[in-house]
Amino acid sequence: MVTLSDRVTALHISPIRRVTALLAETTKRKELVSFGGGGPSLPPPKEVSEEIVKRITEDPQGTSAYSGTRGYLDLRKLIADDWEKHQGTKYTPETEVILADGATEAIFSAYMSIFNKNDELIVTDPTYLGYLESAQLAGARMITLPVSVEDGYQPNLELLKSLVTKRTKAIVLLSPDNPTGRIVRPDFVKGLVDLAVDHDFWIINDSTYRDIIYGKDNQPRITTLPGAREKVISVGSFSKEASAPGLRLGYALGPADVIDGMEKVKQYTTLAPNTLSQNAMIRFLSDGVKERYLQNVVIPTYLKRRDCMEKAIRESLPEARTVRPEGAFYFFVDMRRYLKTMERDEEEFCNRLMSRKGVVVIPGSFFGEKGAGHVRMTFVSEPEERIEQGVTRIGEYVFSYAFSVAT
Amino acid sequence: MVTLSDRVTALHISPIRRVTALLAETTKRKELVSFGGGGPSLPPPKEVSEEIVKRITEDPQGTSAYSGTRGYLDLRKLIADDWEKHQGTKYTPETEVILADGATEAIFSAYMSIFNKNDELIVTDPTYLGYLESAQLAGARMITLPVSVEDGYQPNLELLKSLVTKRTKAIVLLSPDNPTGRIVRPDFVKGLVDLAVDHDFWIINDSTYRDIIYGKDNQPRITTLPGAREKVISVGSFSKEASAPGLRLGYALGPADVIDGMEKVKQYTTLAPNTLSQNAMIRFLSDGVKERYLQNVVIPTYLKRRDCMEKAIRESLPEARTVRPEGAFYFFVDMRRYLKTMERDEEEFCNRLMSRKGVVVIPGSFFGEKGAGHVRMTFVSEPEERIEQGVTRIGEYVFSYAFSVAT
Repeated sequence: MVTLSDRVTALHISPIRRVTALLAETTKRKELVSFGGGGPSLPPPKEVSEEIVKRITEDPQGTSAYSGTRGYLDLRKLIADDWEKHQGTKYTPETEVILADGATEAIFSAYMSIFNKNDELIVTDPTYLGYLESAQLAGARMITLPVSVEDGYQPNLELLKSLVTKRTKAIVLLSPDNPTGRIVRPDFVKGLVDLAVDHDFWIINDSTYRDIIYGKDNQPRITTLPGAREKVISVGSFSKEASAPGLRLGYALGPADVIDGMEKVKQYTTLAPNTLSQNAMIRFLSDGVKERYLQNVVIPTYLKRRDCMEKAIRESLPEARTVRPEGAFYFFVDMRRYLKTMERDEEEFCNRLMSRKGVVVIPGSFFGEKGAGHVRMTFVSEPEERIEQGVTRIGEYVFSYAFSVAT
Repeated sequence: MVTLSDRVTALHISPIRRVTALLAETTKRKELVSFGGGGPSLPPPKEVSEEIVKRITEDPQGTSAYSGTRGYLDLRKLIADDWEKHQGTKYTPETEVILADGATEAIFSAYMSIFNKNDELIVTDPTYLGYLESAQLAGARMITLPVSVEDGYQPNLELLKSLVTKRTKAIVLLSPDNPTGRIVRPDFVKGLVDLAVDHDFWIINDSTYRDIIYGKDNQPRITTLPGAREKVISVGSFSKEASAPGLRLGYALGPADVIDGMEKVKQYTTLAPNTLSQNAMIRFLSDGVKERYLQNVVIPTYLKRRDCMEKAIRESLPEARTVRPEGAFYFFVDMRRYLKTMERDEEEFCNRLMSRKGVVVIPGSFFGEKGAGHVRMTFVSEPEERIEQGVTRIGEYVFSYAFSVAT
């Protein structure tokens, strides 16, 4: 038998995808409540579906033909306009914007464009685990910046400074965050940009959740800060904001050199973005479709679910600690008080919770060492009634271990 | 300015994509005849467009949701059935089949799964240039097996044997071939498999054009040969056979270990294949849609164009040498007799031909050193009348250099 490469042998299957696969097998069980995967339960805006119908009907050849590797210029213009409108910085669609097969590909091709072997990448712990293995594919070494529920999952600037070395090539900033839902504080962002300028490293600004926020939008506009434009590679996605992850479309904005590099990588990994999906997203970014959909559908739906889940956690799991997510759609819940009494780690807990009570949550340790004793619960995929039911069942399971309840 | 990675600095933009981009700018010139890029001018079968309309209308949420990383099992079953029917080997859809964002991604993730740094990959020269740079991304060293018009672009087994070393990790077999259109001879395939078994290396069997052939189908069924099953990774694509490159869907079949590796790579590069495209291709592989479309539309259309182009080349470029393509849709034309008199290399020739006569052909050197003095001309994108016009113009251009014509 011919052998495989060392890199692929060292690579791990995403445990969340494992849970999702397990879940797919058990979805026949209607009573199963999923706080697991981050796929929206909403349909995309009807304008998007209608546009797909229109385009494939009117021009089946054109909508099935190749686009350029960077994607349609029309769509890149709309992405640049949208960024300028919401994020305050003008990018040149011809040279500074590229489409990707989801933010996943944008991150991968950015990594491939910047990392040499053993360059260092700083990520928070816990963090989205897609960052870790793809950085490994690009040869980078991972340096972790711990965050904790006590600090509202906010990264600490002084701690970050102590991690920066001559080998630091990039840091990932994800705000709103997965798995914690926190929006990073403006002073951290400012300090981070100063640090990147002083020490000459990249900031990978993952803006996947940037428009899914529940209060006043006072997120820091990182690309507007002095010196940031030359240090920041922003990646984004239509998966969450258009409820269209299956259309596999994301993008990146950044200095022309990096976008050139990403185009080269894309040419030999996926060649070009999906043409029909691009047509659909041209419609999404036109005539205020996106803004109306977010304001009237996405935000109100998830806000109600968030508040419902928060109330349910407080009532059913009074000794759990968490932070109310200001954006995205995840609660990262510190369950250590319960797990200690139960003498279970978070992975055993999640497995048993699924089999005994039919509720799916993700072990926090999947997101990094500091996630031990935590679970991630998303409110993106279930309506309020089932969120209540699900959290109630978690409470029942926990209390079946007969706590000396502290409430 | 932060630096980029060595790998991306060493990577080249595909010269064909450069030509295509140039072409996109000049398409307003109606008189421009393109024998350049390999994108089909046909629309996909109407069943495919209709299915897209049906699915997005009836289930907008489901068709926009994530599928698993390997893609829908229903589609993998149909791909395995199709392979068994046409290629004679049974693969297990659950473990031995994976979807990809085009054959490009299938090749990339196969490379990433098998190559360590400095492992050797054998490719023919000339060959499809997507093989070269993506192998470089995976760290492989390229070893070339020259083929020539004199031998009908058939690779020579003895020559291949002399290239195999302890570091040989894989060879790419593309049949029908791009850029030459040749179908490889059965005795070569048999010898290749024996060699792979004896020396323990992989065969990347690129079957992108496998169903686009113009005579009796007596291509060797490589996966049926003794010992082949454990050595062959087959990749395929819907881009050419369904005339749907913009839907970005390809696939791979191979031993479960390799498919596992490719799934891991895919998880961190593109996460999952496009859901809507998968639905469309489920329809393409059902109820004989594919077979009818190939027999009634694709093959007759391209066959007429091939014969038209062959006749035109014989008439307008009598001293050019080429081989009638038995499959795919490219003529690889040896122009050395003309270029010598013109004192031009093939790249200057192509540039001037485009600007003076409005005809796009691709320099053969883009496909490897042995392509010097050649040009690639595709008949996939223009109807017969324009094929005749285009080749006539090439003849006019060549003869404007006042040959002592040998005819």
